[in-house]
Amino acid sequence: MANSEFGYVRNFEQRDALPPSNWIVVRIDGRGFTKLCKKYDFEKPNDFRALKLMNDAAVEVLRSFVDVVIAYGQSDEYSFVFYESTTLFERRAAKLATSIATAFTAEYCMQWPNHFPDKPLTRPFPTFDGRCVCYPKRKVLRDYLSWRQADCHINNLYNTTFWSLVLKGGLTATEAEQELKGTVSSDKNELLFSRFGINYNKEPQIYRKGTVVHRSQEPSSCTTGGTNGSMEAIKMPIPVSKTQLEKERKRKQKATIVVENVDIIGDAFWETHPDILASKRNQDFGE
Amino acid sequence: MANSEFGYVRNFEQRDALPPSNWIVVRIDGRGFTKLCKKYDFEKPNDFRALKLMNDAAVEVLRSFVDVVIAYGQSDEYSFVFYESTTLFERRAAKLATSIATAFTAEYCMQWPNHFPDKPLTRPFPTFDGRCVCYPKRKVLRDYLSWRQADCHINNLYNTTFWSLVLKGGLTATEAEQELKGTVSSDKNELLFSRFGINYNKEPQIYRKGTVVHRSQEPSSCTTGGTNGSMEAIKMPIPVSKTQLEKERKRKQKATIVVENVDIIGDAFWETHPDILASKRNQDFGE
Amino acid sequence: MANSEFGYVRNFEQRDALPPSNWIVVRIDGRGFTKLCKKYDFEKPNDFRALKLMNDAAVEVLRSFVDVVIAYGQSDEYSFVFYESTTLFERRAAKLATSIATAFTAEYCMQWPNHFPDKPLTRPFPTFDGRCVCYPKRKVLRDYLSWRQADCHINNLYNTTFWSLVLKGGLTATEAEQELKGTVSSDKNELLFSRFGINYNKEPQIYRKGTVVHRSQEPSSCTTGGTNGSMEAIKMPIPVSKTQLEKERKRKQKATIVVENVDIIGDAFWETHPDILASKRNQDFGE
Amino acid sequence: MANSEFGYVRNFEQRDALPPSNWIVVRIDGRGFTKLCKKYDFEKPNDFRALKLMNDAAVEVLRSFVDVVIAYGQSDEYSFVFYESTTLFERRAAKLATSIATAFTAEYCMQWPNHFPDKPLTRPFPTFDGRCVCYPKRKVLRDYLSWRQADCHINNLYNTTFWSLVLKGGLTATEAEQELKGTVSSDKNELLFSRFGINYNKEPQIYRKGTVVHRSQEPSSCTTGGTNGSMEAIKMPIPVSKTQLEKERKRKQKATIVVENVDIIGDAFWETHPDILASKRNQDFGE
Repeated sequence: MANSEFGYVRNFEQRDALPPSNWIVVRIDGRGFTKLCKKYDFEKPNDFRALKLMNDAAVEVLRSFVDVVIAYGQSDEYSFVFYESTTLFERRAAKLATSIATAFTAEYCMQWPNHFPDKPLTRPFPTFDGRCVCYPKRKVLRDYLSWRQADCHINNLYNTTFWSLVLKGGLTATEAEQELKGTVSSDKNELLFSRFGINYNKEPQIYRKGTVVHRSQEPSSCTTGGTNGSMEAIKMPIPVSKTQLEKERKRKQKATIVVENVDIIGDAFWETHPDILASKRNQDFGE
Repeated sequence: MANSEFGYVRNFEQRDALPPSNWIVVRIDGRGFTKLCKKYDFEKPNDFRALKLMNDAAVEVLRSFVDVVIAYGQSDEYSFVFYESTTLFERRAAKLATSIATAFTAEYCMQWPNHFPDKPLTRPFPTFDGRCVCYPKRKVLRDYLSWRQADCHINNLYNTTFWSLVLKGGLTATEAEQELKGTVSSDKNELLFSRFGINYNKEPQIYRKGTVVHRSQEPSSCTTGGTNGSMEAIKMPIPVSKTQLEKERKRKQKATIVVENVDIIGDAFWETHPDILASKRNQDFGE
Repeated sequence: MANSEFGYVRNFEQRDALPPSNWIVVRIDGRGFTKLCKKYDFEKPNDFRALKLMNDAAVEVLRSFVDVVIAYGQSDEYSFVFYESTTLFERRAAKLATSIATAFTAEYCMQWPNHFPDKPLTRPFPTFDGRCVCYPKRKVLRDYLSWRQADCHINNLYNTTFWSLVLKGGLTATEAEQELKGTVSSDKNELLFSRFGINYNKEPQIYRKGTVVHRSQEPSSCTTGGTNGSMEAIKMPIPVSKTQLEKERKRKQKATIVVENVDIIGDAFWETHPDILASKRNQDFGE
Repeated sequence: MANSEFGYVRNFEQRDALPPSNWIVVRIDGRGFTKLCKKYDFEKPNDFRALKLMNDAAVEVLRSFVDVVIAYGQSDEYSFVFYESTTLFERRAAKLATSIATAFTAEYCMQWPNHFPDKPLTRPFPTFDGRCVCYPKRKVLRDYLSWRQADCHINNLYNTTFWSLVLKGGLTATEAEQELKGTVSSDKNELLFSRFGINYNKEPQIYRKGTVVHRSQEPSSCTTGGTNGSMEAIKMPIPVSKTQLEKERKRKQKATIVVENVDIIGDAFWETHPDILASKRNQDFGE
């Protein structure tokens, strides 16, 4: 048969299953968003509507990928964290990255009119690239998330100061850049306050902290009783039946998705939500 | 600084640059399209509008990724071929796969209303997964494309017969399946003709052959004269200046994109379009 | 220059650095050792001299690779464990696997005459293949080592029974195989005892447990005083100076290498040697 | 069973099969050979016995790995080329690299006394690291080999001049280095001739060209007649029977191994030996 003559080409596909017992982060980044910001005249230093759109897209991604336990976003990027023993797509890197990236892209494009009813989306449409990264320990994963949130803070403090100098201070971009060269955080805080009366720490948290998205584990979201109703917190016996898994999936799909602009570098957030990074289904390897 | 304390997490990203001197195919596949077909009541065995939408999306992808030399699509899949020495995204697999897949997804969602004005798109929105495969020789690449087209033929012949039995012959799905068990191509051709008066070879080429998308290399698309105006055919001297590359990119973006439903298994197509798989910029390694 | 014309071929080398924060196991296996056993008439079911040779080779490997914290061997295989944050050869898989495998091979060949003075080594000389595997958690690494030791036990019990039936019971290989089909451990223990008076649990530990090789951390090996003088146990401040690292390396090279035939599945061994899998140089990621 | 409880650790092994239709080069390099040269007092700039030992080891490697079609060595390195469709070890990179590297190491150690009867080998024994590189086209593979030979030439010309200045000219190493700074090939040739009466082009080819090792394809090595008796040159029908393959393997093992010190950058060598890079068993993909 014609097909079998050519079928050998399948052997050129390389396996790309990610190693077991690693947290998988899929981070997506807006492609060419500098141009896109200009094209749609996004507000500087932060466009609230644009960030809200990012967050709304992320919520839907979390809703349909129940193996994602938390997501963190800032600027034009979002990181989706799969729990360490997920077997989604047999952990194949390309499948994971493209599925998350296309789901996010579809949501971003389709929800655009809700956030920018005055600015019809035209070609080139917004798209996102993505990649998988494996983190072998809970601690390293938390450091990854801290890294992104620290990045958010640093960029936002810079951008807030820069655009204050330009928009309120009347400086050119070059002058503002020059003014900020060599300054540290406290210098920028001082400059913002003394020249523009801005208390940086009172700026909206969404700008300073970025956005965390996760599933609510509150008792109210659970109907079967038990200690806290959290499927994640329960060490389920292995093997888990298909029916159980399906029930779990459905429950997760219905779970309330929580969107917060809070610190995730310190321990407080994680102590309040011990279920998020809890081990699943007895797959705890003693970390 | 907070950032540097966490910066080490960057080291967990693995390099995924694909090897040089290989044709890179990014194949995308519709995710959960069996459900999507039912949801939007796609016609069986082929929905012309759905295929047209796939093709229109592919055309735009080809237009924005000038390093793609040809694309081939059938059913809910599309393969995009990057020329063997492309340096786009430094040949990083994740970047290539997600950029193509999200570009295609955005086009598919945004162009949907043009093809299905009567069927508003609702959640879950259509998405596509994707992967990169490297083909080290022109011959192997052609075998890959032949494999996909042979697959199109085999599936379409089966589906055409199956749905004729069901829709015109009044069989149940199970009965039709039973009837087709063990039949070869000639049996199906005969069955179609004798029972339903269908000459399979007269069925629309788009169903039997799938769709090829490539850039036109006709003289008319070229304004600077020269032998045949094909940038691809010209062995350009190395190094090529940035200006030249930019000009080439712009020319390609403006080039007419050709959409054809033709045989690509035989040599005729390739002999008519020698430029498509021609080596670029002196990077011919004697294949 | 001629060289630069061809230098592009370097780009075909793929990066193969293993991910950080993972224990790296290099396991080597004798190539074609079934033939080799016959050729040199190794004793069945275990050849003490051959196992001793394996162990002696492993000791030298451990001595020269100071980043190996423990090794475990049985039959014709040996596993060498690099501590999780080692940066040897920039964690490049091919370098690690080939360096360990060739060092082991050289030792095996050169030490052969010490163990088999009556059997000169002839071509084909003994060689070993090897591969790297990453284990992200201490617990998973211990399970890996348990897996190898459990494998040793199962094979040895089978082989001991099989060869007793053949050598002492006068059965043919086929008959012995038939006799053992479907038996569980207790059956084999019983058979050994009732028919051959062999108490399996009194068989030499080297056969039943395999061999563990690690560095002694006893106070005596240390001259600088302190609690226990273990460099591994000390959380050293980062950055560590080159001189310090060099001193540490030299001390390790001089450290007594301990060879034991003990259980490593239970906790006792690890509790007695907490330093072996201790984190190095503050690189503890909270496991 | 104990074993199955731990068996999951197997899943941490990553697949490392190299892509089909690529020439696989395993290059090995002496580990720490600068020290080894000093320890055994190798002659400068070239130690004939040491090179001869390298070549003798390579010959044996070629003899036992019949899928290696050619090897090229210089200094303390050797490259072994597997034909592009080899299926040895299912093309697994770690297996290929470690098998070649350990075979070479064993030969090097065992043959040492033949070449250095006056210098007993002591610990640390010589070892070699190794790595696999894939070359997708015959042309690229030849460029790889040319790269190594060009490297040989450049280094040898430098070393010959450097050591002449030191050993015959009485310069210190630093003075010699200084003298050679900025010189091109012709300068060195001139210097060698005018100061030391050395015509570089008359230096032994083994120093200037390195060493090529391959199987003889002369008619005399063939008993079954035919056009030229070359198994490689014959397009064998697929499928090839096991018996045929076994016969072919045996024939290759018996084939005369040719060791030459010739130019492999130009076409002459390859035109004289068209069989070396000929496609095997109909697996020609039109390169």
